[in-house]
Amino acid sequence: MKVLVIGGDATGMSAASQVKRKLGDAVEVTVLNHQRWTSYSACGIPYWIAGEVDGGPDALVARSPEKHRANGLDVRVGVVATAIDPDAQQVTAESVENREDVEVFPYDHLVIATGAKSVRPDVPGIDLPGVLPVHTLDDGIAALDAFAAGARRAVVVGGGFIGVEMAEALCMRGLEAVVIERAPEPMITMDPDMGVLIHAAMENHGVVFRGSEPLVEFVAGDDGRIASVRTDSAEYPADVAFLGTGFQPRSELATAAGLPVGELGGILVDEQCRVVGRDNIWAGGDCTQGVDRVTGRPTYLPLGSHANKHGRVIGLNLAGGRASFPGVIGTAITKFMEVEIARVGLRESQARDYGLDVAAVTITANTRAGYFPGSSQLKIKMIGERGTGRVVGCQIVGGAGAGKRIDSAAVAIWNGMTAEAMIELDLAYAPPFSPVWDPVLVAARQLAGALDR
Amino acid sequence: MKVLVIGGDATGMSAASQVKRKLGDAVEVTVLNHQRWTSYSACGIPYWIAGEVDGGPDALVARSPEKHRANGLDVRVGVVATAIDPDAQQVTAESVENREDVEVFPYDHLVIATGAKSVRPDVPGIDLPGVLPVHTLDDGIAALDAFAAGARRAVVVGGGFIGVEMAEALCMRGLEAVVIERAPEPMITMDPDMGVLIHAAMENHGVVFRGSEPLVEFVAGDDGRIASVRTDSAEYPADVAFLGTGFQPRSELATAAGLPVGELGGILVDEQCRVVGRDNIWAGGDCTQGVDRVTGRPTYLPLGSHANKHGRVIGLNLAGGRASFPGVIGTAITKFMEVEIARVGLRESQARDYGLDVAAVTITANTRAGYFPGSSQLKIKMIGERGTGRVVGCQIVGGAGAGKRIDSAAVAIWNGMTAEAMIELDLAYAPPFSPVWDPVLVAARQLAGALDR
Repeated sequence: MKVLVIGGDATGMSAASQVKRKLGDAVEVTVLNHQRWTSYSACGIPYWIAGEVDGGPDALVARSPEKHRANGLDVRVGVVATAIDPDAQQVTAESVENREDVEVFPYDHLVIATGAKSVRPDVPGIDLPGVLPVHTLDDGIAALDAFAAGARRAVVVGGGFIGVEMAEALCMRGLEAVVIERAPEPMITMDPDMGVLIHAAMENHGVVFRGSEPLVEFVAGDDGRIASVRTDSAEYPADVAFLGTGFQPRSELATAAGLPVGELGGILVDEQCRVVGRDNIWAGGDCTQGVDRVTGRPTYLPLGSHANKHGRVIGLNLAGGRASFPGVIGTAITKFMEVEIARVGLRESQARDYGLDVAAVTITANTRAGYFPGSSQLKIKMIGERGTGRVVGCQIVGGAGAGKRIDSAAVAIWNGMTAEAMIELDLAYAPPFSPVWDPVLVAARQLAGALDR
Repeated sequence: MKVLVIGGDATGMSAASQVKRKLGDAVEVTVLNHQRWTSYSACGIPYWIAGEVDGGPDALVARSPEKHRANGLDVRVGVVATAIDPDAQQVTAESVENREDVEVFPYDHLVIATGAKSVRPDVPGIDLPGVLPVHTLDDGIAALDAFAAGARRAVVVGGGFIGVEMAEALCMRGLEAVVIERAPEPMITMDPDMGVLIHAAMENHGVVFRGSEPLVEFVAGDDGRIASVRTDSAEYPADVAFLGTGFQPRSELATAAGLPVGELGGILVDEQCRVVGRDNIWAGGDCTQGVDRVTGRPTYLPLGSHANKHGRVIGLNLAGGRASFPGVIGTAITKFMEVEIARVGLRESQARDYGLDVAAVTITANTRAGYFPGSSQLKIKMIGERGTGRVVGCQIVGGAGAGKRIDSAAVAIWNGMTAEAMIELDLAYAPPFSPVWDPVLVAARQLAGALDR
């Protein structure tokens, strides 16, 4: 059996490795990768830019092309797929360095793992030197080059996960940083009453946050590089600018081949990660869209954790198994300096937009027993649906030990638990780890009360 | 309505406060407390002894008798209940200071929250000065007095939660510490292959751990105080000794009153925390036994977290609500210096003793992305049942961020999840918090494979 994989990152390499491990010599696996690196942690890039990761870009590479080859995979780097022909069961590809160097790869099974691309706002100056996305290892190198060249002032466009992480990186590098965001507060994946806590944390560390200020233009200096960033109400000098404006599925190749693509631009797959309507084409990771288990609606969440799971599911299914990926509930975490930030499920505003009758509560508690050294404050917002009583969302902002508490809420939401039932969950308690009532349970208790009223 | 509560700690005061808050002037609440303190954190005592809690015993008191009184509760301290008369609906009590000062308290509803007592091994010398339990604030004061008097060498009897926490306290105080334990490894609530990691951590910090050495005698010195601790194979000099030999329900009063007590010595209650067969008598916390949700068997787990929940349930039910406590799954956490220790559900040996056909796996992973600073190692053992595929237990030992991961497993076990289903759980991932596959999911993945074979 010939398996061809387009994309050598989380999904692609996980699928390739998994099927090779299961089938050995019974399968030939070829991976086409347009980048030089395989299996790298894109999520680690802001921390590498911050100077927190020793060892340069290689430290972010979980497994190099050489290591994959040693495991029996035919990994081609610097090769970009240009067309899929599902009827002929073949993919045309060309060399990144020499576009005339074209090769055709036949397959029995195809895995599409083309990933995401950074959203590039459609404004003047978007292509100026010094306007950098934060996605690939080459982007990271460009950021470090800018710092080395003496960049002192940076503007981050967008206050979401990448924006917050880049704000931290700039803090740690000692640059003057301004974050501009179209929405009033950072982290639009959370409600603004939680986002404002992140806003405050940024200001505590000297990062300027400007909400409700849409980007208008990147302005060039005399040297042809970026000199400032203009919003609808101000202009901020900038030696470098970072795009934290989100990602979108890289699904053009699939679209051109007539494969189904959904309303969010992602390739449509079933629970087995098989492209809808195709027996021998699979897709996963950031080029696909998924299903939100809380709402049953389509969702697009390009995250390494999901991409890895998709790869495993595809690999197992290619090897004749029957693995499945049942969807996501939007669990995510990050931090800004000492402040941990996490969320899962629906935010309050979103739940109302979807027509749910919800109640929301916000509690303040400690990460440890109040008397225990190192205890810090956290806030938890929890959202539940009236009638069913089920918890539909949770958001956490607080000190060390706050963020990963989201996992308790995530597993509860995953299992459809009500706020009332969550109160009695048997969570771990000892003074160095939690108050006697874990803050997640305190939130559930308050929410159960609010849902009752 | 007259509510009488015996015991002014977690369950008693939670119940009293809850019903008073709900019913206000419609209820008279009297609390009889044999100690001077109310609502204190017994779990904090080892950390206070270690010198980690500023502010002396008062820092461990969540709410003093005065504050409870200000909330309208009639709190009597230094008063010990001596008899319950369920037919006459009254309790006889006497003053701790003057046993002839006897008073009779009538009630409409009685709450029994008499807590636990330390198990005192039946060996010579158990009553010697310097042989100290670790349970009450007075015990903590006695420990600090012993340190102040120059104690240099300490023996801890028992290597369970209290034993491990006292070993840490002694480390932090700079005493020479020996922990003796009847079982081969510390923490018999975990399997020995995980306990050995705690053993190693103790030795790394200079604590001597002696497994498979049952206590034989506390030996007195010329001054009549403890001088050494003798096991079946050695004798250890000791200026002070601590009892980490477990707790048992303080249920004599209930037994004498003809109330039902179970095979583990705890008062039997239903899910509403009502004493079985009694309409107007309630009980909760460390004087009761509970039900293990994994096995359906009786269990005795004296923990502040459960005790607080029982108190809430009793208070709500006294106020005419219908709250319930559905049982526990044995989630617990502690630490020894930098090593976090957590467990939930059945251990492997226990599962086999119960006749379950189980598989167990142990994985090693990092607490954060491997390249992220501060990442440390953790081991997770996960146990599942063949056939059903459900996860029945999990144990974690590792560095900062390891322990509270038990909560993900706990919520999964609570909901009866299979190892296969757990793999796809949407847990929070970012490099400062987790590898891309959360270690709990890695364990579930390995376990699903093992259960399949």
